[in-house]
Amino acid sequence: MQNKLKELKTRLMEIDDLRGAAALLYWDQATYMPPEGAEARGRQMATLERLAHEKFTDAAVGTLLDQLRPHEEGLPYEHPEAALIRVTRRQYEREVKVPPAFTAELSRHLTSSYEAWVKARPANDFSLVQPCLEKTLELSRRLADFFPGYEHIADPLITYEDEGMKASILRTLFAELREQLVPIVEAITSQPPADDAFLRQHYPEARQLAVGREVVERMGYEFSRGRRDKTPHPFMTKFSLGDVRITTRVEENYLAESLYGAMHEAGHALYEQGINRDFEATPLADGCSAGAHEAQSRLWENRVGRSREFCRFLFPRLQEVFPDQLSAVSPDAFYRAINKVERSLVRTAADEVTYNLHVMIRFELELKLLEGSLSIADLPQAWREMYRSDLGIAPQDDRDGVLQDMHWYGATIGGKFQGYTLGNIMGAQFYRSALEAHPDIPEQISRGRFDTLLGWLRENIYQYGNVFTPDELIERVTGGPLNIDPYIAYIAGKYGELYSL
Amino acid sequence: MQNKLKELKTRLMEIDDLRGAAALLYWDQATYMPPEGAEARGRQMATLERLAHEKFTDAAVGTLLDQLRPHEEGLPYEHPEAALIRVTRRQYEREVKVPPAFTAELSRHLTSSYEAWVKARPANDFSLVQPCLEKTLELSRRLADFFPGYEHIADPLITYEDEGMKASILRTLFAELREQLVPIVEAITSQPPADDAFLRQHYPEARQLAVGREVVERMGYEFSRGRRDKTPHPFMTKFSLGDVRITTRVEENYLAESLYGAMHEAGHALYEQGINRDFEATPLADGCSAGAHEAQSRLWENRVGRSREFCRFLFPRLQEVFPDQLSAVSPDAFYRAINKVERSLVRTAADEVTYNLHVMIRFELELKLLEGSLSIADLPQAWREMYRSDLGIAPQDDRDGVLQDMHWYGATIGGKFQGYTLGNIMGAQFYRSALEAHPDIPEQISRGRFDTLLGWLRENIYQYGNVFTPDELIERVTGGPLNIDPYIAYIAGKYGELYSL
Repeated sequence: MQNKLKELKTRLMEIDDLRGAAALLYWDQATYMPPEGAEARGRQMATLERLAHEKFTDAAVGTLLDQLRPHEEGLPYEHPEAALIRVTRRQYEREVKVPPAFTAELSRHLTSSYEAWVKARPANDFSLVQPCLEKTLELSRRLADFFPGYEHIADPLITYEDEGMKASILRTLFAELREQLVPIVEAITSQPPADDAFLRQHYPEARQLAVGREVVERMGYEFSRGRRDKTPHPFMTKFSLGDVRITTRVEENYLAESLYGAMHEAGHALYEQGINRDFEATPLADGCSAGAHEAQSRLWENRVGRSREFCRFLFPRLQEVFPDQLSAVSPDAFYRAINKVERSLVRTAADEVTYNLHVMIRFELELKLLEGSLSIADLPQAWREMYRSDLGIAPQDDRDGVLQDMHWYGATIGGKFQGYTLGNIMGAQFYRSALEAHPDIPEQISRGRFDTLLGWLRENIYQYGNVFTPDELIERVTGGPLNIDPYIAYIAGKYGELYSL
Repeated sequence: MQNKLKELKTRLMEIDDLRGAAALLYWDQATYMPPEGAEARGRQMATLERLAHEKFTDAAVGTLLDQLRPHEEGLPYEHPEAALIRVTRRQYEREVKVPPAFTAELSRHLTSSYEAWVKARPANDFSLVQPCLEKTLELSRRLADFFPGYEHIADPLITYEDEGMKASILRTLFAELREQLVPIVEAITSQPPADDAFLRQHYPEARQLAVGREVVERMGYEFSRGRRDKTPHPFMTKFSLGDVRITTRVEENYLAESLYGAMHEAGHALYEQGINRDFEATPLADGCSAGAHEAQSRLWENRVGRSREFCRFLFPRLQEVFPDQLSAVSPDAFYRAINKVERSLVRTAADEVTYNLHVMIRFELELKLLEGSLSIADLPQAWREMYRSDLGIAPQDDRDGVLQDMHWYGATIGGKFQGYTLGNIMGAQFYRSALEAHPDIPEQISRGRFDTLLGWLRENIYQYGNVFTPDELIERVTGGPLNIDPYIAYIAGKYGELYSL
């Protein structure tokens, strides 16, 4: 049995090598690749992904998984070997349904689609991406159709990112959340907006990058196993547990972009850097779902980064780094500014309260596109209408609308947005548990100390990587199921106090 | 037949994708990878190289090559399809002799060996690399032994880099060259040395990089299909014909390092960027040998960059960029300084005249290691002795001796040095032909115009990539065989004038 397990691990390591290399090709494309490298790069990524897919779906892997079933069943559920066999089987059964030629076609297409977006966004020209996006939608539908028997065509794409979730559950959950959030948004936006003009002065890039680095390093991000580069859209990527990288977008005329973007991506990276290193090069060495991942990034960005306690620690340092811009600003004004709630256009820059409304619009647009009740040609218009009705504001142009971020241009349509809101919900549940275990965490944060929180997250969540499903993880950590109450309580409490609701 | 050819090209493209990805993994390791990424990186590179090797040596490739022989024989020798089949067969017949497991072992070992060198050089501690190097030597011997029937154990390793060459030919050629060069070196070094103290002032990195960029851009290096980054040891690498990168080492206390290093690597890159783009993703899309490649880099670095005409163009610009350092320096003093001849320790920083003596020492040490007449343990001492006897100077420590560059720590031992001197010889032959065709090239260079030279090189050499063997290329371009006379005439003429010999 140990030989079979060893053979499985050897095969998984080869697949992981191909995927790690593909991730580096992608990172390089986003950071440093010269423009004329794109064509071959698309081909190279497609080849690596196809080979990884071929090797993972090799019948010999299925046979090994069958042969290892008795071994798995003889072990406790949480045993790393049982988890490895279980998680590998789940992924194998999913991937074996998708033909390698399709994977290669998809990967090639998404590369050219991303390149089209890179040109279309500054040109504010949706027509440059429309044919690409039509093809992406067609490919996304074909991908879903490899998993017949779904309730909604988006379900296979949702499950892929958030195990255990489907469109019907999410539509209910999101309706419930919207019902709670909309009155809060209305109550807040009926008041005069917080003043954040001082955040929109000129903040030189080099100093923004330096202070961002200090913050993520203090959070516990290890630069010996990572690095940070600039990209138009920030992301976290991993080539191995020893190389987990983040990227940042710097806006010289807006301090909060690079700072909170860095905390967000570092939150993702802390999750990956916290995984048990014995899991290296196996399917266990990943976060357990998009939502669970987003729970970490948004916990660090918002629960930590936008708290009063964190401002108490950070603001004096910011005043030192940016004396001309901030010496006349009070700590309370800073806290209010970074928590300004407003009806805005860009999801990634949205405040905590309206953020989920952005996500729900994108989620609903994806469902409609996949169902066929909305065409790509009508998407920019539908976007504007939904923003107008749900957020009371609509983009002047597509640059701040349908072209605003690389989603849809570098990935399939479907399943890519629910994770953000699930992350907010799960993050609130996790943070409540952390505070129950260590009520002194906020006080530590006010001194710039994050080790108790990070230690708790590592012990209870990070180390396990992909061992548990999101439902199992929530149950283990919080003692109950997914639940929006802690999130609503947090939002109502924090913003009730801020806006005297 | 066209179907067979198409199948061959499809297979070659997949192999090229794997190799392009492996090259990026390597580039990233040398430029940006965090230290803890090294372990997985070595595994990833080994996997990609093993897969590329497995796919290239697949029996189906051999069958296709056999089936395509009649097609090849029906075409003119220079026809791209004939060349593709011929060159692929030559590489196939070589690669098929090396077992995939060996390739993977070698790649893994070289990665850890490179990492060991990165630590050993600043620590000036040969013991940190000695065990690695012993293993490298053993693996190098094993590699040679996959090609039985050689005259000298280094021959298979030499042929791999420089088709048509072997130890006995090179020992004769080098003896002849040494005989001509040593009296010149002695005559020069018996005179007072040129004053290059002004090159060794503080030259801020950013301005060095900026002026280096101007120069390589003027040479014709296309940044839309390349980029430049900093590394401890400069190199050129290629991920596709649309992405040919160079790296530079900057010494803030020595102006010539980054400037001439950049011209050298850009020379390599111009060769690759000049290859017929129809050859993309095939074995034709490479320079034809180490020597032919070095001919380009050293032609641009030395024949162009260290000429009086180039100085006439460059020096006023350097005075603008570095007024504090250079305003009191005369153009003639600059020309003398960048052509200073001295007995020195570091090959990459050596002047044109002594450079080949460094190469010949390294070449001879490699032969001795491979023959078994020298052990790795005795290598630092043998290094010092040969430097003392051949160059009249010996390193105080291993940092400037056996640890001075990454050769031997990132590649096999054997076949890696003859190319530098072959490049000097071939480059002189090529340049003589270029001047015969366009006598106005020097005058153009004095005005910072390189298009006639670059056009001639592209037309006569670069576009053909790997179509011809080095011997064929020399014959086509110069009308005769490899010949040291143009190189000796150049050195004797230039330095005879400089030192009134």
